[in-house]
Amino acid sequence: MKEFDLHAVSLKDPFWQHYQKIVREETIPYQYQVLNDALDVDVQAEREDASLPAGKSHALENFRIAAKQKEGNHFGWFFQDSDVYKWIESAAYSLINQKDPSLVVIVDEVVALLGAAQEEDGYLNTFFQLTRPELKYRQLYFSHELYCAGHLVEAAIAYDLATGKKELLDIAEKNVQNIMHYFGREANQIQGADGHQEIELALVRLFEHTNNEKYVALADFFLAVRGENPDFYTQEIAENRALGLSTEEPSIDLTYLQAYDQPKNQREAKGHAVRMLYMASGMAKVAQHTKDPALIEACVAIWQDIAYKKMYVTGGVGGTVHGEAFIGAFDLPNDTMYCETCASIALVQFSFEMFKLTQQHQYLDTLTRALYNSVLSGASIDGKQFFYVNPLEVMPDSCHHNPGKGHVKTQRPDWLGCACCPPNFARLISALQRFVYTQENDTLYINLFAASRLVQADQFVIEQIGNFPFENQMTIRYTGVAQKIVIYKPKWLQSFQIECEQAWQETDETLVFAANTLIHAKIIFQQPIQMLRANPLINQDINQVAVQRGPFVYCLEEADNGKGISQCRLPIDTVAFRLSESQKLWSPTLVINFDGFESQKWTQEALYLPMNEPYVPKNWQLIPYHLWGNRGEGEMRVWLPLALVK
Amino acid sequence: MKEFDLHAVSLKDPFWQHYQKIVREETIPYQYQVLNDALDVDVQAEREDASLPAGKSHALENFRIAAKQKEGNHFGWFFQDSDVYKWIESAAYSLINQKDPSLVVIVDEVVALLGAAQEEDGYLNTFFQLTRPELKYRQLYFSHELYCAGHLVEAAIAYDLATGKKELLDIAEKNVQNIMHYFGREANQIQGADGHQEIELALVRLFEHTNNEKYVALADFFLAVRGENPDFYTQEIAENRALGLSTEEPSIDLTYLQAYDQPKNQREAKGHAVRMLYMASGMAKVAQHTKDPALIEACVAIWQDIAYKKMYVTGGVGGTVHGEAFIGAFDLPNDTMYCETCASIALVQFSFEMFKLTQQHQYLDTLTRALYNSVLSGASIDGKQFFYVNPLEVMPDSCHHNPGKGHVKTQRPDWLGCACCPPNFARLISALQRFVYTQENDTLYINLFAASRLVQADQFVIEQIGNFPFENQMTIRYTGVAQKIVIYKPKWLQSFQIECEQAWQETDETLVFAANTLIHAKIIFQQPIQMLRANPLINQDINQVAVQRGPFVYCLEEADNGKGISQCRLPIDTVAFRLSESQKLWSPTLVINFDGFESQKWTQEALYLPMNEPYVPKNWQLIPYHLWGNRGEGEMRVWLPLALVK
Repeated sequence: MKEFDLHAVSLKDPFWQHYQKIVREETIPYQYQVLNDALDVDVQAEREDASLPAGKSHALENFRIAAKQKEGNHFGWFFQDSDVYKWIESAAYSLINQKDPSLVVIVDEVVALLGAAQEEDGYLNTFFQLTRPELKYRQLYFSHELYCAGHLVEAAIAYDLATGKKELLDIAEKNVQNIMHYFGREANQIQGADGHQEIELALVRLFEHTNNEKYVALADFFLAVRGENPDFYTQEIAENRALGLSTEEPSIDLTYLQAYDQPKNQREAKGHAVRMLYMASGMAKVAQHTKDPALIEACVAIWQDIAYKKMYVTGGVGGTVHGEAFIGAFDLPNDTMYCETCASIALVQFSFEMFKLTQQHQYLDTLTRALYNSVLSGASIDGKQFFYVNPLEVMPDSCHHNPGKGHVKTQRPDWLGCACCPPNFARLISALQRFVYTQENDTLYINLFAASRLVQADQFVIEQIGNFPFENQMTIRYTGVAQKIVIYKPKWLQSFQIECEQAWQETDETLVFAANTLIHAKIIFQQPIQMLRANPLINQDINQVAVQRGPFVYCLEEADNGKGISQCRLPIDTVAFRLSESQKLWSPTLVINFDGFESQKWTQEALYLPMNEPYVPKNWQLIPYHLWGNRGEGEMRVWLPLALVK
Repeated sequence: MKEFDLHAVSLKDPFWQHYQKIVREETIPYQYQVLNDALDVDVQAEREDASLPAGKSHALENFRIAAKQKEGNHFGWFFQDSDVYKWIESAAYSLINQKDPSLVVIVDEVVALLGAAQEEDGYLNTFFQLTRPELKYRQLYFSHELYCAGHLVEAAIAYDLATGKKELLDIAEKNVQNIMHYFGREANQIQGADGHQEIELALVRLFEHTNNEKYVALADFFLAVRGENPDFYTQEIAENRALGLSTEEPSIDLTYLQAYDQPKNQREAKGHAVRMLYMASGMAKVAQHTKDPALIEACVAIWQDIAYKKMYVTGGVGGTVHGEAFIGAFDLPNDTMYCETCASIALVQFSFEMFKLTQQHQYLDTLTRALYNSVLSGASIDGKQFFYVNPLEVMPDSCHHNPGKGHVKTQRPDWLGCACCPPNFARLISALQRFVYTQENDTLYINLFAASRLVQADQFVIEQIGNFPFENQMTIRYTGVAQKIVIYKPKWLQSFQIECEQAWQETDETLVFAANTLIHAKIIFQQPIQMLRANPLINQDINQVAVQRGPFVYCLEEADNGKGISQCRLPIDTVAFRLSESQKLWSPTLVINFDGFESQKWTQEALYLPMNEPYVPKNWQLIPYHLWGNRGEGEMRVWLPLALVK
């Protein structure tokens, strides 16, 4: 299944256009200034730990020092370089959507800086260049050198696509050449993989961009070599000690690194969530080309383990801050979870690759759930503040007093010492049209309802006209070569009515239009407000419901309801939801009101009493989850307790 | 209000006699062998952290090395000595209850060892003697030297009481003399307090034992000096660095240490729970003698903050493993909490001192709740395995996969690297009769229903005859000087009927028998099975109930109900509980059965669906919480979800 060139798809969708505009006009310029340390912003550590980098980004300054244009020391994480690469990628996609010569000038300057910082042999990683040159490619258990290289490759592809300029692609390919020199199956090569996956998926994209098959072979190598020798990392550490290169003797958690076995033998989502999902994305991408059945079986099992056992209703993943990791099946704490923005972005990416690999539509349900909820929650509505962690329940007092919630920020910081999420958000949104259409042989797939126009010169033009999810209809217009069109029906839309003179049929998951040179269809559907129950095996959501309408999961916020939102009680099956358009926050916002109850405070000082809860009627207002946290610190919750009524 | 000599009270109560027997015959000999490293047992760190001491106790060996009887290095925590002191205290109380000359021989040997380890000037702390002699009394932010001294004092008092032997008391008083030399208001003295409170309450007990008022004055000093100079600990650290004594530069958390203000100005329970409660016990004890209104006000406020805002239904306290600390008001996570056994023991102690200070009975409710539940849960029924953490909900899979639960052990370990709890449990149980009777002027108080006999020669004899809580009646027989008798009515007993020919009256909290030289009363009551709701401000217990009968809180265990106990649903107000006597676990055990529902597993693979939960009828069996975890690893929960019925 193939994606279309991003140039070919124009998003006309008001919702996504607004997001792309914010990212283009606010986020990208803002992030450039932050990466330059040119703004006085509050750069916070991602969790309460005084040893973590914070206070500034220093990402571009690190390159200037490596390029010997400035004097100074490296500052920040050992993967700080990747913030710059992801920013370039965001800028490049944005340039595809809207020309901006002044932005090209800025990016060109950054590209020149990267070129100046790159070593003769292609090596490029400012942390190791400036702090531990003797340990290049020798500390793979933490180094992120190949992770950064992967992001460099993705940025280079994007910038080439956007501008046709090859300088960054040359830098990236030279860096990959250096990696190819040091890694591989030869006796003198390193037979191990980076602690943080990313290079695998990037190399497949580089193959897709250049058609050079050695890149997909290298991706396949990195997937094969991971976990092949479980002692690789401890041997590496021992060798460094023996050579006097390092005195470090860290303990290696192979599960955290997904290196406890070869990826093709893995069946569960374990360890660091972003690493897991970047790896799985790489596996799915490699499998698209190699058709390796072992890899496909592993991908399917891992995806099912996530979607059916380890995913929040918001599409968040990663149950714990300890190792930013997956935890056990059906164990989904709503207030101490991690749900990193990057992890949901990676889930979108993995699900999309699985859809491309299999043409099965359940993957798009998960893509959409994560995209509209946990991903969008990652940024403020002005595009200048960012969550790393996206909780489903916030009680500010608890966050301030319970150190176990030291990672659960009640407000989006201006920037993060570990700033992986902000530019990841920007690059995803800027290239959002990527997901809307795909093609497999003679079938055109519409994967997302999103007003847009896809033009394939001399072949076809297809348009979606409408304002999803604010309108309950979408018009499809196709003209061109005769081909079948398959439209995905998300699980949360119902009662489809099709007005179309051409032949079509409806399945549980799709609308299928028979091959025709002209298709004009009006699709009408309902977006009922649904009360979702969690699988009874999930301990944390017992006797509670989540409210969803269309792709949006809703939440209660203190700003609309006052303090004490945990005292909300929702009638079990007689609740009358009222949907209305509001101008608050995002315009328009569809808010939901309902008449429920409020559990009353006890009049006596006691913690435990043999009594029933007194309720009083109360009207509650819900907003889409992705908009939470934009009105100052306050309580928030997604799962709403049901009222116990006789 | 005065306590009675432990010799004067004989416990006849089958329940408590059984516990005292287990402690005497099993726990005390077992612990002596563990402290001697003479048993091959699994000594676990108290939480998952490879840097913590584990594998052995070494507590007595440390003394042998300090006494130069052995060569070797100190091993274990810097407060490892206190394990020995608390073991001596347990043994001493046990000797009061039952003579055992062979145990006296063993204790005498240990006492001689302590004497040999003690330095000329009275200093005694094997950690500093063996590892950092230059830093004696110079690292109070962590040192526990005075904490250990407090436990030495308590052990010495107990052993003097039990045997009349003065050797240990001499060692303890010599140690306190050394402390008095170094600490105080003189210019050359240390004007600071130990990081871990305990000395304060011990010094008041030493005053009560010796009638030497300088001890209560020293206790008062340690309470006055804490927090007086908030920079004390950082100054101490800076001075050590300046003198070249240490390169350590730790950050000091004054809240953790309750040193953010003077204790008399504190109004909330904050920081490390055991420290907080040991300090509060010391405050209440000092206030009993000084009547300092500021101290009394602080004690009352702190106790109310705990009992009305921060205590679990089991009497557990401490919401987080991070700093083993209290968290915010009404924030009581059931599965990640700490609820250290020592903290509940300390809550028993603090509540008892508050009762003695005020003669108000609400303190006894909390004492009893903690004692019968979270304290007893700390030991296995064979008295040889111990919990440090007493959770209210255990899902073994979650504990194994979620590092945030690395401290929540699903089984009691044989021993702990940080072994504060096991001997603390033993000393409390061995001296349990302490709590049953107290006297204030001409009023005799019966604080606990517990079959027992209190003899005050030439004055009076009082007996409780019955088998609480297994029988619903207790007979009281008093003969002696005419005095009023006040009997506390626990909140969980109801419908009192009194058969008595002497004058009496009933209040909400008490039965009061008018002064008489002979009182013979039969007290009949009901112990209904209560469904307790949590205060609606507690987020974690919404739509759930805890079941209590008499003083016992109940729980569901996998051993009785199979896997999936979180799927239990309890009818909201039509549930018929059936109480029956069982021979399982503890004999007798009162188990509770009820006909409820089981939420059925979904047939489709999905995490979230718009559907109601399907229920099937199921009979469930509850056991007293304190007996959980005695039948292998399994699920357990105290809070039971209510059934949602239309």
